[in-house]
Amino acid sequence: MRTLNIAQIGHGFMGKAHSNAYRQVNRFFDLPVQVHLHTLCGRSEGVEESARQLGWTHAERDWRKVIENPEIDVIDVSTPGHLHAPMAIAAAEAGKAVWCEKPLGNTLAEAESMVEAVTRTGAAHGLFHNYRAVPAIQLLRRMIDDGRIGQIYHFRAVYLQDWILSPSFPRVWRLQKSQTGTGAHGDLNAHLIDLAHFLVGGLTEVSGLMRTFITERPLPDDPSKTGEVDVDDAALALLRFESGAIGSIEASRFAAGRKNYNCIEVNGSKGSAVFNLERMNELQFFDRTAADDAQGFTVINVTDQPHPYGGTYWPSGHIIGYEHTFINLVAGFIQAMERGEPLNPNFNDGLRTQRVLEAVERSHESRAWVATV
Amino acid sequence: MRTLNIAQIGHGFMGKAHSNAYRQVNRFFDLPVQVHLHTLCGRSEGVEESARQLGWTHAERDWRKVIENPEIDVIDVSTPGHLHAPMAIAAAEAGKAVWCEKPLGNTLAEAESMVEAVTRTGAAHGLFHNYRAVPAIQLLRRMIDDGRIGQIYHFRAVYLQDWILSPSFPRVWRLQKSQTGTGAHGDLNAHLIDLAHFLVGGLTEVSGLMRTFITERPLPDDPSKTGEVDVDDAALALLRFESGAIGSIEASRFAAGRKNYNCIEVNGSKGSAVFNLERMNELQFFDRTAADDAQGFTVINVTDQPHPYGGTYWPSGHIIGYEHTFINLVAGFIQAMERGEPLNPNFNDGLRTQRVLEAVERSHESRAWVATV
Amino acid sequence: MRTLNIAQIGHGFMGKAHSNAYRQVNRFFDLPVQVHLHTLCGRSEGVEESARQLGWTHAERDWRKVIENPEIDVIDVSTPGHLHAPMAIAAAEAGKAVWCEKPLGNTLAEAESMVEAVTRTGAAHGLFHNYRAVPAIQLLRRMIDDGRIGQIYHFRAVYLQDWILSPSFPRVWRLQKSQTGTGAHGDLNAHLIDLAHFLVGGLTEVSGLMRTFITERPLPDDPSKTGEVDVDDAALALLRFESGAIGSIEASRFAAGRKNYNCIEVNGSKGSAVFNLERMNELQFFDRTAADDAQGFTVINVTDQPHPYGGTYWPSGHIIGYEHTFINLVAGFIQAMERGEPLNPNFNDGLRTQRVLEAVERSHESRAWVATV
Amino acid sequence: MRTLNIAQIGHGFMGKAHSNAYRQVNRFFDLPVQVHLHTLCGRSEGVEESARQLGWTHAERDWRKVIENPEIDVIDVSTPGHLHAPMAIAAAEAGKAVWCEKPLGNTLAEAESMVEAVTRTGAAHGLFHNYRAVPAIQLLRRMIDDGRIGQIYHFRAVYLQDWILSPSFPRVWRLQKSQTGTGAHGDLNAHLIDLAHFLVGGLTEVSGLMRTFITERPLPDDPSKTGEVDVDDAALALLRFESGAIGSIEASRFAAGRKNYNCIEVNGSKGSAVFNLERMNELQFFDRTAADDAQGFTVINVTDQPHPYGGTYWPSGHIIGYEHTFINLVAGFIQAMERGEPLNPNFNDGLRTQRVLEAVERSHESRAWVATV
Repeated sequence: MRTLNIAQIGHGFMGKAHSNAYRQVNRFFDLPVQVHLHTLCGRSEGVEESARQLGWTHAERDWRKVIENPEIDVIDVSTPGHLHAPMAIAAAEAGKAVWCEKPLGNTLAEAESMVEAVTRTGAAHGLFHNYRAVPAIQLLRRMIDDGRIGQIYHFRAVYLQDWILSPSFPRVWRLQKSQTGTGAHGDLNAHLIDLAHFLVGGLTEVSGLMRTFITERPLPDDPSKTGEVDVDDAALALLRFESGAIGSIEASRFAAGRKNYNCIEVNGSKGSAVFNLERMNELQFFDRTAADDAQGFTVINVTDQPHPYGGTYWPSGHIIGYEHTFINLVAGFIQAMERGEPLNPNFNDGLRTQRVLEAVERSHESRAWVATV
Repeated sequence: MRTLNIAQIGHGFMGKAHSNAYRQVNRFFDLPVQVHLHTLCGRSEGVEESARQLGWTHAERDWRKVIENPEIDVIDVSTPGHLHAPMAIAAAEAGKAVWCEKPLGNTLAEAESMVEAVTRTGAAHGLFHNYRAVPAIQLLRRMIDDGRIGQIYHFRAVYLQDWILSPSFPRVWRLQKSQTGTGAHGDLNAHLIDLAHFLVGGLTEVSGLMRTFITERPLPDDPSKTGEVDVDDAALALLRFESGAIGSIEASRFAAGRKNYNCIEVNGSKGSAVFNLERMNELQFFDRTAADDAQGFTVINVTDQPHPYGGTYWPSGHIIGYEHTFINLVAGFIQAMERGEPLNPNFNDGLRTQRVLEAVERSHESRAWVATV
Repeated sequence: MRTLNIAQIGHGFMGKAHSNAYRQVNRFFDLPVQVHLHTLCGRSEGVEESARQLGWTHAERDWRKVIENPEIDVIDVSTPGHLHAPMAIAAAEAGKAVWCEKPLGNTLAEAESMVEAVTRTGAAHGLFHNYRAVPAIQLLRRMIDDGRIGQIYHFRAVYLQDWILSPSFPRVWRLQKSQTGTGAHGDLNAHLIDLAHFLVGGLTEVSGLMRTFITERPLPDDPSKTGEVDVDDAALALLRFESGAIGSIEASRFAAGRKNYNCIEVNGSKGSAVFNLERMNELQFFDRTAADDAQGFTVINVTDQPHPYGGTYWPSGHIIGYEHTFINLVAGFIQAMERGEPLNPNFNDGLRTQRVLEAVERSHESRAWVATV
Repeated sequence: MRTLNIAQIGHGFMGKAHSNAYRQVNRFFDLPVQVHLHTLCGRSEGVEESARQLGWTHAERDWRKVIENPEIDVIDVSTPGHLHAPMAIAAAEAGKAVWCEKPLGNTLAEAESMVEAVTRTGAAHGLFHNYRAVPAIQLLRRMIDDGRIGQIYHFRAVYLQDWILSPSFPRVWRLQKSQTGTGAHGDLNAHLIDLAHFLVGGLTEVSGLMRTFITERPLPDDPSKTGEVDVDDAALALLRFESGAIGSIEASRFAAGRKNYNCIEVNGSKGSAVFNLERMNELQFFDRTAADDAQGFTVINVTDQPHPYGGTYWPSGHIIGYEHTFINLVAGFIQAMERGEPLNPNFNDGLRTQRVLEAVERSHESRAWVATV
């Protein structure tokens, strides 16, 4: 079997999740290629140790060398957001497939340049909006496609966490605009917007509200000093869709008790559905066509044979976890590349999301609705 | 409109719930008679005050006078269990309808004498197994009758409370065999057995286990002294049904955090259902005939027009409470009496339950299975 | 005991709920006055039958006569919104206490005139924002007052229903601007805004979005013809609070499967809480001060002695229903009147809510943020 | 780093889960040895393909050759139950560590011979009761050890599935006594009994009930013929513990809608806890020492740093799945072997469970309580 050589730049939290997907994908999916964890790339000294721990054959500290390496087929960009554009563009220009962590870039301009590069070079491009690959989300998409939700009236989504609630939490890179662009907005609303696109379709305009509750935090390296937090702690928006549906999104890192609460509700003319990432193996489905005395939200345990990815892992009722979303996503990337089709999702999806992210920011500043297109 | 004069003996917790039902039943149900709260009867001085508070026209301290009063149509027996038999039998012999709190008696012999009396006298007789009148339980019964559950394999029920968990809780009358017969068993398992009969059908044999965790408690009137607890704190049984189904019941007053947790599950060849009294407006229903990718437990909010008692109270989604089960039950009693039909449930149901209660006790003592018939 | 004579104008859904509260309040609360259901007033012929059914002594079809009746102490205004102002003002001027259904008026001008009238006349005034009287909401307020939630960052509330989802549902009065002012907005967001005020405090500005999904519906009297729906089916708003908190509200009658889903979440620096009216006996509470390995949302069954209204109805775990919120509210109205204190909530609260409702409408039209003060 | 060579006999469902654990354990745990998937052994031709798919270096069809191979350190016995004893005993006698799938044997005699062999030879022995390694179960154990549950009164557990509910489901090996010993009982109750031991302690006696609902099923290879099902479809038991606690267990494969519903409740003098394997990342905990108006079941998302296995996988709120229980268990096995300590759980635990399993069978036959010791 042919080998697909991956090089991954970045080895933080996302790097760990991506590495796991590469190690595991051939164990559960029947693929025409064998993934090889060729090179892990990182700036710090720890990259060798990480490479060993995560199962990579080589470690490298200069990302340009990785991109130039003719053995490599795919460049995985898992660095902080401000590095996505230069790396992805260079990789595309070097003839590599590029799989990039979300959000695509820190700014709309960056995202546009990345789409331009992959379009110009013909590079295969994928984006790690891994929640598309949650079985319950795929089931919801199937239900929508099949007309079981009907005409969608409402999309309602929150992505709530609480990890920076304490004022003593340090001013890490994720709280600095120069590295991350925005805070909860780009990190969490990017997921919600991508899912809005995936499930409901295009947006026309937004009204946004962003808020930083704690503006000074201790520096990681010297807690006796503080630094400015110049990104949002929370960001909300009202949404209008092309279809006539309306919606709302909210991202926060200040919701005590919510750890990874990506919760989405869709209401349509024939039914409704609710998804909650903290119970990611379940989809709640309301079916208006059920017997009139037996209607209600059905808690579907999405682990059975008839479900998306059914039979890939364990028997019915034996749940999967967060990491499996990446395995599913990578399997889809590989299958698409083998068929010569666009990856799903890809840089175009990322650009579309970036436009909405930026529209929310502009709306927040202009205090008025802003078109997303 | 004709008046139905009620006299109620007993004005504790159950008396309060029954009184409320009498006051409210004509407000929500369209009945051919007008219920009148004629006389409240109790041994203590407080009965006059209770009568005023609960809306009764008269108060009386001698229960025999109440039974002799020709104005009274219905005698409601809401006293501790050891008084049920003498009062109910006297009432039947005086030509009254008798509505009795459960369990029917403290012993099988008492229950048999009560059934004998109402049979001999032709008195109308009803039993306050109010949980039959929960809309969700009625819905479940409808589903079973309609074949939507299929052949029932399993009945699984617990009724858990925690109000005597503290060793300092006093030795009240409900903890004395002379007054109450048994503890959690007669109080709580009586409900579960009645629902087993109502939903699944007759039993053939049981294996029981009873347990008293705290055997000495402070006396209510003098906490410096203690008295023996000679009834069970918890009682469990395995069940065999005539139909071939199997099951289990458990009653406990030692289940920390469970306040009124009457939770019942039925599994059949076509579906399953779960009921929890703490969320009594809901029924969970699993339908094996649903689309194969949309199966799961559906949380039905049983407050809509198509549901049992639909439209009686408030619009869909506006829930009812514990007290409404008594209103529903009393409405049914009155409708049955007007039609000249047996009340549902009645003393025969109570006797059947008593047989099972006693079989569990005997099994506990013999350490072997005991037939219930 | 002194009698408090009530006259209620209106006998639809709300009239039924209010009547029940008047019948029941003395049964469960120890009050210094005895409530008397003196007169029920309605325009239609059915009012006599309703009066009998609901327990009123008299029936009357001319509301002005009721207001002039010197026997009456309290006028309950339970009519459609456009009649609130003339009736309430007349009642106040006639020296009556006025208890008014929400929203206070259909417009800000009406609401202002009502407040002016009660202020000028010194009439006692109460507003039926009954959800303040849900035990779980009172518990949440207690927790906030006690500092157990800490500084509030987020208020997040939806009130979702689905009763007009079908295009064949007729164009009833609740869908006509001339009678009701707005649709889901005034009906449902009024509750959310009142609770936002009650729990978090004053607002400073809003960004609103209103939407009518189905603009023509069959006429109730002649389904072969259609009439225009000129009120919103759904209304959303982003909120800024005086305290620095941010929030959102959403009202919809197009959320399939949501029957009476008034769901509120508050996130603070010390904890969070979630309330859902469909499970109104429960409050979910997250306590950041709990042991670090035992934190999570605690489902509190708010029916125990230590809870608000504890001991008023039934033992712990025996739930109450929708109607009890009105009993609680009316008990509070009476207690406040007896003490000569302002009722809670009252017309001032209604006016404050009206200002926000109208700000959302103006924001929807101006497509920009609008101040609420 | 030293290598630990594993050979696994059996490559069905359990083989897949074990293989995954061996591949992954070094990626998430910091261990002193590197696990090597040396040899996969199976009788069928498919073993080579399985070995490739699951990541094993070698494949072998004769299990005796595997046991004789001096390179192998650990023999993993993942075959049907009737093969456990001969393989495990041979492995122990060959000086290997033996890790065996549960239940230990098909009969008490087999289990005893296995314990005898590992005791005699000094072989390290582990048993795949993987649910001990669920973080939520470990947390519950910690709570019990810390006295946060107090004196345990009740243990209540069900393990419900529905995969053989259809009469057309074939008579597979798991339904044949000769291969599997018992049905749901050994498969599912074995887990519950092991958890009872782990959480509450030793049992003294049981009363059992076993039932086969469908006694003839189509043969897998020729559905036109049927074969006898001679194992139980469901098995229940009442339990008495040495501590004075009482309990119940139930295993069924006929509970429609329950896919992998291993649900356990423990009630003690200070608190309660509920675990449900279908939501295995959660533990519900009731704390009687919480503020008296804030008590209830807390849904703990057991994925945070302070929790058992905290920090091993993903950030808080990012859940793990079924397979991680095996990774955790294997990590524990390796750590114990390195420290020269008994593995947890091990063959002694398996023997203890087997005694209870067999006592339930005998009780079912004798229709009376049977001692477990």
